[in-house]
Amino acid sequence: MQTIRVETPSVKYGVVAGSGLVESLAPRIERVASRLPRRVFVLTSGPIWGLWGETFLASFPEAPVVLFLEPGEKFKTLASAEKLLRQMARAGGDRGSLLIAFGGGIVGDVGGFLAAIFMRGIRYVQVPTTFLAQVDSSVGGKTGVNLPEGKNLVGSFNHPLAVFADIGVLGTLPERELKAGLMESVKAGIIRDRTLVRFMEEHVDQILGREAKALEKVITASIRMKAGVVNKDERENGLRMILNFGHTVGHALEQATHYKTLLHGEAVGWGMVAALFLAGQRGTISRVQFERLESLIHLYGPLPGLKLRTARVVAATGGDKKNVGGVRRFVLPVGIGDAGVVEDVSPAELEAAVGYMLGRAGERLV
Amino acid sequence: MQTIRVETPSVKYGVVAGSGLVESLAPRIERVASRLPRRVFVLTSGPIWGLWGETFLASFPEAPVVLFLEPGEKFKTLASAEKLLRQMARAGGDRGSLLIAFGGGIVGDVGGFLAAIFMRGIRYVQVPTTFLAQVDSSVGGKTGVNLPEGKNLVGSFNHPLAVFADIGVLGTLPERELKAGLMESVKAGIIRDRTLVRFMEEHVDQILGREAKALEKVITASIRMKAGVVNKDERENGLRMILNFGHTVGHALEQATHYKTLLHGEAVGWGMVAALFLAGQRGTISRVQFERLESLIHLYGPLPGLKLRTARVVAATGGDKKNVGGVRRFVLPVGIGDAGVVEDVSPAELEAAVGYMLGRAGERLV
Repeated sequence: MQTIRVETPSVKYGVVAGSGLVESLAPRIERVASRLPRRVFVLTSGPIWGLWGETFLASFPEAPVVLFLEPGEKFKTLASAEKLLRQMARAGGDRGSLLIAFGGGIVGDVGGFLAAIFMRGIRYVQVPTTFLAQVDSSVGGKTGVNLPEGKNLVGSFNHPLAVFADIGVLGTLPERELKAGLMESVKAGIIRDRTLVRFMEEHVDQILGREAKALEKVITASIRMKAGVVNKDERENGLRMILNFGHTVGHALEQATHYKTLLHGEAVGWGMVAALFLAGQRGTISRVQFERLESLIHLYGPLPGLKLRTARVVAATGGDKKNVGGVRRFVLPVGIGDAGVVEDVSPAELEAAVGYMLGRAGERLV
Repeated sequence: MQTIRVETPSVKYGVVAGSGLVESLAPRIERVASRLPRRVFVLTSGPIWGLWGETFLASFPEAPVVLFLEPGEKFKTLASAEKLLRQMARAGGDRGSLLIAFGGGIVGDVGGFLAAIFMRGIRYVQVPTTFLAQVDSSVGGKTGVNLPEGKNLVGSFNHPLAVFADIGVLGTLPERELKAGLMESVKAGIIRDRTLVRFMEEHVDQILGREAKALEKVITASIRMKAGVVNKDERENGLRMILNFGHTVGHALEQATHYKTLLHGEAVGWGMVAALFLAGQRGTISRVQFERLESLIHLYGPLPGLKLRTARVVAATGGDKKNVGGVRRFVLPVGIGDAGVVEDVSPAELEAAVGYMLGRAGERLV
């Protein structure tokens, strides 16, 4: 078990990663919240609660109020949030209440947002149950919901009291979700941690075989990378931008496929392929590094095949939330373990990169 | 023109109170926001915009995107917020955008909330157009919307870049709203500023006659009082509680009359009568002080008459958001210009105070 500290100017909290956390939550939360309040809420999803609810409840002297969010991106809405906030009000929630977000990234995002706005803010704890949520969305305080106009357009920066990432819970995670989540660890390695790149190259079988030790290593390295970046740039003004490596094209792919074909991590996987190509063309990475890093992505694949027109994907890169004032920002690796942000990517460069990536993604369909 | 500084651990900003502010907004906002961003949004209401829209636009080189919130508490909802957030997304709002809340307390609360959650937070400016919003809701960073389960149950602490309280705009404010707003100034005097109490006793005609000098004096004293309290206790953990003087019973009256009979300030007026009676019974104020302060409330009346059962009002005091863990908190004046919070008000004391107040409110109906 390891604890990674997140320390920003506004908050300090720990991300605990290890086994056996879900069955011992109540005393762990008591340690960070001084005591369990009168009303504890758990936001979760039906499937997760079905698998892990009993284990979860074991350590609580009094059963918390369980709130359910229907699974799927289409329920990540203000309407869902309102329904849940009303349930919290009716169940006697007050400013001293505490919320536990127990589920994947969507549960974490919505749970953190509920905690941010219920009675102008109550405390909350993240207990992420997917690999992706453990390494990515549970650290950094980004919370929110979607609008019909775009993903995560509404939300709040709101840090939890603590994050408990239980590796044991990953035992019931579908293979495809594990692999998609691992793309964020690949990303972590490429932009910030060459040791992680090597470890993931050399331990594919152990990681995909879910050996606790290997998973703990990858998860803690990924969290440590993200926490390090967030510590230096809480509000995404500068350094934190590099966490968007693979995301400009990744988001465009999600949008072009109406969020139905690809898991987020898979879209980021293909987005990284495009960004690596671009970096290779620019020479911020060598030809050898390009091939090595693209191979790493495919080691944790195969990523789903895609049949899309280049122009469609390029057009979709324009509406990304990370673009302030209409500028299209791109994160490019510099060697292995470092990255920078550029704003001068030409339409031709972008087309070539997307074209290369779609070529690779088309091969998968043959 | 005066500027009152709000300084909390998390933010510093100024509240500017005086005449001629609406027609010179753009350069004033540029001074606090360094420059006007590509997208400026104005949230306002139809009636206010009809009266003051042209004046407002005068100083803007490019017209901002105007968003309308329908007037009335019943539109202070998450559904309204979602509609407005979608308009902002469609109009090309990004993280660099700025929102100006131009209207009364509801516009300010909703505008501040939109700014808190649009793209996880954009900058905003308050330009309150009612007396109440100028002295009360525009200072302190409380923003939010209602749920069917209760008022302001959803929201955020979110401070503006600046507040511009234009006294000239009060010229078009209905008499009843002015008087209701003045109840918050009476409150300010009673809990924190005996000089303001005396000024309001001695200048009733000038204040109700809306003489600029008298209004500026009352407004700046009220804002200064609130800013002083918020500076010391941003998140309402301690001192800020005293701003709720008159509000425990006031909220109960609003609830018991389904938010239809009384303006907020009027409910607070009657709530203060009850709290003053309670303080008189306990001896935290003398008999003479009680009579003097109750008279002050009626000088800015008459408050609307009420016909309610005591038990109904007492019951409604139980569900106030300010009660953590089920404890009923009460703010009581201590002499004139000071106040404290008590948690041990007995049902009998509360009944007597509400009974006295309802007696006075009943006289108004004869």
